[in-house]
Amino acid sequence: MVSLRTHTKLAQYMRTRNLTLEFTEFEFNSITHPIRFQCFSTVLLLLTKTISALALIEDVRRELTAIRSPRHDCQSERTTIPPLDHLTSDRKAPSEQRPELLLYNFSLLVYRWMEDLGFIPNLPNGPLDEYRKTSSFNWKKLKLALEGDIELLKLKYQIWHTLENDPLFAHNSVTPPVEEQKRITQMQLQKINKYKFISNEIFNAGYRKRTRTLMTINEAVQSLAPSVSVKMAIGIYLFSNALLSLGTERHRKFYEATIKDRKIVASFALTEIAHGSDARLMRTTATYDPKTREFVIHTPDFEAAKCWVGNLGRTCTHTLLFAQLVTPDGRNHGLHAFLVPIRDPQTLEIYPGLIVGDMGEKIGVNGIDNGFVMFNKYRIPRVNLLNRTADVTEEGIYESSFSEPSRILGAALENLSAGRIGIMQESCHSISSVVAIAIRYAATRKQFGERNNETTLIEYELHQWRLFGYVAAAVVFRFYLQNFAEVYLKIVEKSNSGHGVDNLSEAVSEIHAMVSCSKPLLTWTVLEAAQQCREACGGHGYLKVANLGDIRSNHEPTVTYEGDNNVLSQQAGNWLLKQYEAVMNGHSVDSPLGTVTFLKDFRAILSSTFNCTTTAELKNSKFILSTYKWLLCWLLKHTHEKNEAELAKGLTKVQARSRSQVYRWRTLTKVYAEYLALIFCLETIEKTEPQLLPVLNKLLCLYGLWSLDKHLVEMYQGGFSRGEELARLIRAAILELCGEVKGEVVSVVDALAPTDFVLNSVLGKSDGNLYQHLQKAFFSHPGAFERASWWRDVVQSKL
Amino acid sequence: MVSLRTHTKLAQYMRTRNLTLEFTEFEFNSITHPIRFQCFSTVLLLLTKTISALALIEDVRRELTAIRSPRHDCQSERTTIPPLDHLTSDRKAPSEQRPELLLYNFSLLVYRWMEDLGFIPNLPNGPLDEYRKTSSFNWKKLKLALEGDIELLKLKYQIWHTLENDPLFAHNSVTPPVEEQKRITQMQLQKINKYKFISNEIFNAGYRKRTRTLMTINEAVQSLAPSVSVKMAIGIYLFSNALLSLGTERHRKFYEATIKDRKIVASFALTEIAHGSDARLMRTTATYDPKTREFVIHTPDFEAAKCWVGNLGRTCTHTLLFAQLVTPDGRNHGLHAFLVPIRDPQTLEIYPGLIVGDMGEKIGVNGIDNGFVMFNKYRIPRVNLLNRTADVTEEGIYESSFSEPSRILGAALENLSAGRIGIMQESCHSISSVVAIAIRYAATRKQFGERNNETTLIEYELHQWRLFGYVAAAVVFRFYLQNFAEVYLKIVEKSNSGHGVDNLSEAVSEIHAMVSCSKPLLTWTVLEAAQQCREACGGHGYLKVANLGDIRSNHEPTVTYEGDNNVLSQQAGNWLLKQYEAVMNGHSVDSPLGTVTFLKDFRAILSSTFNCTTTAELKNSKFILSTYKWLLCWLLKHTHEKNEAELAKGLTKVQARSRSQVYRWRTLTKVYAEYLALIFCLETIEKTEPQLLPVLNKLLCLYGLWSLDKHLVEMYQGGFSRGEELARLIRAAILELCGEVKGEVVSVVDALAPTDFVLNSVLGKSDGNLYQHLQKAFFSHPGAFERASWWRDVVQSKL
Repeated sequence: MVSLRTHTKLAQYMRTRNLTLEFTEFEFNSITHPIRFQCFSTVLLLLTKTISALALIEDVRRELTAIRSPRHDCQSERTTIPPLDHLTSDRKAPSEQRPELLLYNFSLLVYRWMEDLGFIPNLPNGPLDEYRKTSSFNWKKLKLALEGDIELLKLKYQIWHTLENDPLFAHNSVTPPVEEQKRITQMQLQKINKYKFISNEIFNAGYRKRTRTLMTINEAVQSLAPSVSVKMAIGIYLFSNALLSLGTERHRKFYEATIKDRKIVASFALTEIAHGSDARLMRTTATYDPKTREFVIHTPDFEAAKCWVGNLGRTCTHTLLFAQLVTPDGRNHGLHAFLVPIRDPQTLEIYPGLIVGDMGEKIGVNGIDNGFVMFNKYRIPRVNLLNRTADVTEEGIYESSFSEPSRILGAALENLSAGRIGIMQESCHSISSVVAIAIRYAATRKQFGERNNETTLIEYELHQWRLFGYVAAAVVFRFYLQNFAEVYLKIVEKSNSGHGVDNLSEAVSEIHAMVSCSKPLLTWTVLEAAQQCREACGGHGYLKVANLGDIRSNHEPTVTYEGDNNVLSQQAGNWLLKQYEAVMNGHSVDSPLGTVTFLKDFRAILSSTFNCTTTAELKNSKFILSTYKWLLCWLLKHTHEKNEAELAKGLTKVQARSRSQVYRWRTLTKVYAEYLALIFCLETIEKTEPQLLPVLNKLLCLYGLWSLDKHLVEMYQGGFSRGEELARLIRAAILELCGEVKGEVVSVVDALAPTDFVLNSVLGKSDGNLYQHLQKAFFSHPGAFERASWWRDVVQSKL
Repeated sequence: MVSLRTHTKLAQYMRTRNLTLEFTEFEFNSITHPIRFQCFSTVLLLLTKTISALALIEDVRRELTAIRSPRHDCQSERTTIPPLDHLTSDRKAPSEQRPELLLYNFSLLVYRWMEDLGFIPNLPNGPLDEYRKTSSFNWKKLKLALEGDIELLKLKYQIWHTLENDPLFAHNSVTPPVEEQKRITQMQLQKINKYKFISNEIFNAGYRKRTRTLMTINEAVQSLAPSVSVKMAIGIYLFSNALLSLGTERHRKFYEATIKDRKIVASFALTEIAHGSDARLMRTTATYDPKTREFVIHTPDFEAAKCWVGNLGRTCTHTLLFAQLVTPDGRNHGLHAFLVPIRDPQTLEIYPGLIVGDMGEKIGVNGIDNGFVMFNKYRIPRVNLLNRTADVTEEGIYESSFSEPSRILGAALENLSAGRIGIMQESCHSISSVVAIAIRYAATRKQFGERNNETTLIEYELHQWRLFGYVAAAVVFRFYLQNFAEVYLKIVEKSNSGHGVDNLSEAVSEIHAMVSCSKPLLTWTVLEAAQQCREACGGHGYLKVANLGDIRSNHEPTVTYEGDNNVLSQQAGNWLLKQYEAVMNGHSVDSPLGTVTFLKDFRAILSSTFNCTTTAELKNSKFILSTYKWLLCWLLKHTHEKNEAELAKGLTKVQARSRSQVYRWRTLTKVYAEYLALIFCLETIEKTEPQLLPVLNKLLCLYGLWSLDKHLVEMYQGGFSRGEELARLIRAAILELCGEVKGEVVSVVDALAPTDFVLNSVLGKSDGNLYQHLQKAFFSHPGAFERASWWRDVVQSKL
């Protein structure tokens, strides 16, 4: 137990110096590799003695390089400890930094270097080697950096490996009938419950660790079986979280039955036929009857039927219903949540008093049995009201009870954001998959070119430009989400645990604004990427076995559910304008996460102009971020002025806001989301190891400039530049970056891509043997070579 | 036979005054309605006497209004003969015009007014009336104008009516298995053959008339059963046309068997696994064997297998194969076409020597059995070579025979362009359908708003802006295609008939350039529109019964087939740059259709700048077209300079071109396509009747400005404007137009939409009873209310 002792010592050291960070989370107990331990203890020695002499560190670097394990099984030979000048996170000269921070960074680096990435399967050699050889980094290192946590990455591979070896999760080259998809999805969910990917240890661990693990499981499952992950997210997590945050002790047994024993698959009934986004106007009622101590649930007409309820059509036994609570005095107390039994768990028969139907086929995610329900004076016990914030007494008196505002706020935050963050994580996976398919295809497919020397698609500048921006987006989004999820989970954890969080209410608002514009940005970008990747794979991309169509169709609803993107992003705009108006009025911004603290300088920022003359000045995060700040300030001003002008005309707030959306509010929230992705990504990138920095900087700049390219009009309109240089230089820089990324991009998608089985694309296999896989797919397609069973109809009908 | 005599007289009159136009094509024989004839003869009297007194015309106007038939069954009451000042096509004062032209316009107007549009079913009253009442025109008149020909519109309704009453064409609320889709498609094709929608009279009519009729049949079928139209287009029209243009008398019997007797369903085998766009490098060979007087067809490996061959997987009996012709001396004479038997027509068994397989499931159009084929020294008779341009003698000598260059050029034009024009027409239909669905939904669905007074989606400016641009595109594209197809067909007809066409070769090049950029513009715009419309319908848009998903999936391959959009549009760029370079060198442009004759003034155009100060100055075609001319000149200069700079670096032509695509070539061809759509649309609009002019002008301007909005960066970069006004005014004008179009848009989509049966969308019914149709769909979905047949698996597996 030496390691545990060291761990404690180190943690203590860090704490006294206010260096909390992730370092204390290192899983020392899992360190068994002798060399790893030896390296580490050297660093620990340095740390605990706080020896700050820089020369010593350089000695250690040499020592560590020398003792590098010969059994080290990373594919690349480039894994040497980098020299000192790469170690610092903020790029200052080492001598300017606090020695502790330097040592911290160094030890982090060493730790990462030592990590045994052997659990990541090596890539087969083949035609893609040509473009793999040119990369500047080890793709496994990038994969780990993108995941951010080696244990989670291991878990992901473990899940993929398990499911790959389970025939229930085998892929179909022909889409099964929708009813069969629903059956398979239900079976798969039950199987996943049995696998218990979440250990009891994790389950009982802290909120943050548990949630990250659950998110990883969700992503790993979603990548293989998107309907299953939706089914699980709604039927288990959303439901049980809602019980926790809205219910009380009396609902605990349902919570346990769902999340622990997996005996309940539930659903979540909010949306009605005629009302989706506007929850205020839901018309289902729950009227309390003191005689029987029951709520009577009723649906006035079809327009008020609950619909789009995942799991309701065929499978769920319970639903979490949102209905207007009406007391015997006839007063309506607004929307409340109720636990409502739907089916007999033993027979799956619907209970009398309900009309429950399946909504039928959809564009995608057909494994989910979306249903609708109409209640005909359906009675449930009083105690089925989730009564954390309010209750109805046995006599029928409504009592609200806001006892723990902090916890309720935290819970509210979680309810609002958790699902959207989950969608963002799934989106990161989907974009990774589609770009991996298109890039591997582009690096193997040849077409045109000079006589008898055909050109690989990836060599065409147009093809690079069509795809590389999305590769960069995939990387930036992942780092953004990794960092943001951590921030988010820390706040929820603190507020849940009853520890005070400074400015909790303001932080909740800021996080809500961030999520409200980021979910739209990510989901829309993935949709565009999927389409562009399909087109970039030509006709072969149109095959089902290319998987681009299915990924796209299954991703498609994310732009609508959990808050329609257009409606949701308006909420981010509200918050942004509020901050702007505060600054305008001489107040300070309420931005505990610091995403818009720069607004205090908005006058200075707005007076800045573009004055670069070379592309080199543009290809760095400093230029990109300062340009984004200008854009945000100008768009805030532009939107604010329009809004005020409309109000001055006598329009109501709602009307004025509605007339300030196009070219203003809408653009503003998109720009803010891009800015968030960039700043959070940058922060994460700076902590990665040196060998990854060059490629990550290129991708960050490519994403930044490629996104700025779409806002050039605003920059001209707002007077940021008047000449031709702005557009010319930004576009030239993008094309230069495309050229620079070309030699890296195959390894980048190797890091982004899941295993071949999970990717499930005939065009995106990691061995690059495109035509062999196509041949195999064509020849093994069911009945490919058979005469049509209906040939008699064809011939007969000619007579 | 009075009418025939009058017809002849009129035709003669028109000819002597060089007033050919469409007027001579009026179907006098079909005029039976007494009032119609009376009106008409009055006008004819005026015409034949060339009475030019304006006063007289005004008398006639009054007279005609007076005798208007009381049985006239158009829905709107607005069908009065408009006063004189609306009659002229170029908006000059009537007195400035030639009296003949004035009379011609007037008679055209009267003729249109008299048209009996009773065959178009009236629209049911309902919630949409609110937005129908506000329109300024009769939607049936717009429908006729969009079609351009009353007989074709009647034919379309006849086809829709026939198929609606045939259970074989009933819609499915659940997608059938792919194999079943193939069977149904084949059965449907055979049924359509039996219906003989094309009469013998039309079949024997002139080329232009026949082709327009065939195009209409194709569109009408495609709108209902997209796979069938593809099957028919490839299996009958593409094949038979190729036999006509590439074959000789010896292939006549196959032509007759396909197009007349419908005994053959064929396919078209060009693309190979490893080569799609680059036809030069196809590797399938047809080697002549003089001993047996046969060609031996061989596929060297899987990469050379023909693939994506529609109809090949399950059904075709013959294929038109493109293979490298090799003579016994070992010389390769390049790609030639061969007629190759694939299946025994009596048994549908594949012939020995072939490996033929079905390619399996695709994203859409699964009724088409796309197949692949590998030939194993498969022998066909010598005469199966399509030998119009070259032949191989019995002894094996290759002989080329370019005997009729004009006809061959015309044939080449048709082969290249016909399929693409067909795709463009189908695209017009698809965009009409998706916008009709989304607009009708937007005009009935309410969400948010002030308290208890919910706002209809169509009232939100953001919603207008998201959708109306696509409505405008749908109208502009239709008028563009109507006009362009006529120009195209005239040229083909003339060249086929042996009459000389001035500058035929130049006209062929120009038409090829036009098609090469317009097919991408139309197909991409439709894809975007389908996506935007799906999102604008929220979750309900994700239902299969909304039909937005299926329309999108079936449309999707059009951006790839018949020339990948990215590759194809480069060809338009080649032609444009050639013209620009000619002008630069002091030569004149080769633009018989006049689309780029303005290039002669390119220096003056480029020196023009933006100097408007009000939106009113922008909302007219003059501003829009002159801005487009500036854009085209600047993009040509920008692209040309980049290309030259790359060549100067020592790059090859291919390399230089490849480095000039992004931001240049690619944008240039898109802008040219938009310009074409605008000028051809404008020409057509000017001929429509006065009541339609206001709304059509708004839509034209909206499309123009909405498209220019995407090119603002180029306008700033090129110095067309430096201030904020350009962006501000264009965007303000777009939003103003959205507001102006709001009251018209429901009637516009009524004119664009097919019948409810054809539109087949639960969200887009013409009665506007959104929720009733949704309820009907949910309640009638197969098995909606049944317990899952697999419920035992769910319950059992819990034990």
